[in-house]
Amino acid sequence: MAVGNTQLPQMHPVKGIKLGCCNAGIKQTERDDVLLMQMDEGGSCAAVFTQNAFCAAPVTVAKSHLLQMPRWLLVNSGNANAGTGRQGMDDALASCAAVAEHCSAGQQQVMPFSTGVIGENLPMDKLLSAIPKAADNLDEAHWLQAATAIMTTDTFPKGVSRVFEIDGQPVTITGISKGAGMIQPNMATMLGFIATDAKISQSLLQTCLSAAVDKSFNRITVDSDTSTNDACVILASACSNAPEITENSTALSRFSKELAEVCFLLAEAIVRDGEGATKLITIKVEQAADSQEALQVAKTVAHSPLVKTAFFASDPNWGRILAAVGRSGIEQLAIEKLRIYLDEVCIVENGGRADSYTEAAGQAVMDQQSICIRIDLARGDCAEQVLTCDFSYDYVRINAEYRT
Amino acid sequence: MAVGNTQLPQMHPVKGIKLGCCNAGIKQTERDDVLLMQMDEGGSCAAVFTQNAFCAAPVTVAKSHLLQMPRWLLVNSGNANAGTGRQGMDDALASCAAVAEHCSAGQQQVMPFSTGVIGENLPMDKLLSAIPKAADNLDEAHWLQAATAIMTTDTFPKGVSRVFEIDGQPVTITGISKGAGMIQPNMATMLGFIATDAKISQSLLQTCLSAAVDKSFNRITVDSDTSTNDACVILASACSNAPEITENSTALSRFSKELAEVCFLLAEAIVRDGEGATKLITIKVEQAADSQEALQVAKTVAHSPLVKTAFFASDPNWGRILAAVGRSGIEQLAIEKLRIYLDEVCIVENGGRADSYTEAAGQAVMDQQSICIRIDLARGDCAEQVLTCDFSYDYVRINAEYRT
Repeated sequence: MAVGNTQLPQMHPVKGIKLGCCNAGIKQTERDDVLLMQMDEGGSCAAVFTQNAFCAAPVTVAKSHLLQMPRWLLVNSGNANAGTGRQGMDDALASCAAVAEHCSAGQQQVMPFSTGVIGENLPMDKLLSAIPKAADNLDEAHWLQAATAIMTTDTFPKGVSRVFEIDGQPVTITGISKGAGMIQPNMATMLGFIATDAKISQSLLQTCLSAAVDKSFNRITVDSDTSTNDACVILASACSNAPEITENSTALSRFSKELAEVCFLLAEAIVRDGEGATKLITIKVEQAADSQEALQVAKTVAHSPLVKTAFFASDPNWGRILAAVGRSGIEQLAIEKLRIYLDEVCIVENGGRADSYTEAAGQAVMDQQSICIRIDLARGDCAEQVLTCDFSYDYVRINAEYRT
Repeated sequence: MAVGNTQLPQMHPVKGIKLGCCNAGIKQTERDDVLLMQMDEGGSCAAVFTQNAFCAAPVTVAKSHLLQMPRWLLVNSGNANAGTGRQGMDDALASCAAVAEHCSAGQQQVMPFSTGVIGENLPMDKLLSAIPKAADNLDEAHWLQAATAIMTTDTFPKGVSRVFEIDGQPVTITGISKGAGMIQPNMATMLGFIATDAKISQSLLQTCLSAAVDKSFNRITVDSDTSTNDACVILASACSNAPEITENSTALSRFSKELAEVCFLLAEAIVRDGEGATKLITIKVEQAADSQEALQVAKTVAHSPLVKTAFFASDPNWGRILAAVGRSGIEQLAIEKLRIYLDEVCIVENGGRADSYTEAAGQAVMDQQSICIRIDLARGDCAEQVLTCDFSYDYVRINAEYRT
């Protein structure tokens, strides 16, 4: 199941960026499971990574290669190469070396990414024999294939593409993402790969990406589990005819805004495809004293299994939302001032059910696929939002059967 | 479903404590749903309560009455009287007044407790007409009826009873508990009612109870949701012929130990009856730098939906345990030193799967109903443990259908 539109939009090619896919038979026997992305010389690259202390071997390698002007991204699905100790590091480095050899590049110009089951060694023979095939298949038009090749428990390929103008010249941002479970990104996402033909320095690109990720991938949660393999990477090929984007150029805010929207839509697509999801839930916390407490309340509600199962049942069981807010650890919360809304329907005020509330009004909101829980803390003027989904039988089924 | 023994043990009556039950038809039409407990004059009472900011009206009333030497506990299941604002407070006070009137007591000598659905007003006509029936039914032998009357989604009544000697005189501790979902007690449990005939001051009784609860009810979690109605109360009737337990008496450590065991077994019973539970999981974190980080790691693992669904599937997917430890927020965790065991089987060492590990050995442990995850952080000498259960289809079913 998935919530809302699962159709990939038109994916505009990005000048200077080619993608090659193939099937290595890692876990999938029919679908592609290896992606190679290549950027022309002269571009820049920025990335953010998981904060999980047990980050996977490819994350460790990708972090160190980020400083060496990488131009190739090698991605496999079906195996995360995480919890694999020394062998995992050797395998991640060997796969970079194989790309480097085939593409006449330096090994450190390749960043490796893996996603799938944790704790099993990469099937290196399969991966190494797939690399030449993916390299021979490189093409600017292969975004749909790429979005499909990185999927694990995803039920649809996820992509967003924007073309806009800077000084009358078209600039493109096209990105793909994957992820459906083990989703509470922390300074990163599951996997997101974004490309642009904008000309922009590495440091400014990193600033733009970090800001965009903070308000998108870092504001979603499916099941509160932060992956060992999260990463979001942007390649900027500098192939557009538009002038360079600098800290002082007026184009910077436009580029940042477009990138933020691409990241937001890619992140939203992950929640809409949350394992077993039947509903997209936006939790807005308003009038908080600061951002930290707003996020604390939003995430406590977003992680509550009781709230999530009530939404699965389309049951306006607002008591569970209230209980989650109450246990979120906010000091001196004035419960009589707090208000909670389902979309525009006020459900809680004066410490209990709102006088104006009717089950019929609550039910009408709950019957929708996309629902907003708005919590007004009446403590300040800060607002934050987090996206999540409901908790269904299928979440249990998918995760109980994952390795079998 | 429930894990392990669901048989109520022999429940020894406690001198000076009587229990009366009846059916008020609050939600159950056949099973008793109201319990009245009465203690003879001259005893003491101690209690701990939920830390949820949205604590229910009866919790607020019970807290204030605790200071007035209460001798009656009125409990109803089927309705939590939580999130009910001013009306909820009026109803809780009115139910105390009704007990007081019928039993010729002061209103403040009655502590009210409610458990069940949140956000609906107490059906006061039903409750008020049940009170005389429960009072007319008071008897020292009614522990099984009492344990049954306080159940909500529980599948079996929970009780523990101990008789031991102090200075050659028998002392009894008998207790009951309820709870299956919305379980992550915070300084309290769902509902636990314990009685003893020991003679002990209110302040010392409170010290013993707080210590026992901290290591029992505060170390369990079913679904990370802290209830609005948690409370654990002990009544000490002073009817035993044993001498008074004082701060300096040798009997204090014996009494504390027996009370701690009663609390631990009552708490364990709640986890064994966790909504949809098929497995009892003990998470021991050892060699932590301090208690706080040990609990942080244990609770992160205990709350992970991915760990819990893997246990439901009897899948030794240790990568999920490792990922949960990695995201638990411990600073400078040395992942290469850490070891993780399933019972006695080492599954993780040197940052990856243990060399000695085999899927067959892991599977043999996972096929058991009761499993210990032991995590050795190699950082210090502190240890803590948390009990939890797995996450099954039935958890979703129970909580999706709860109000329908």
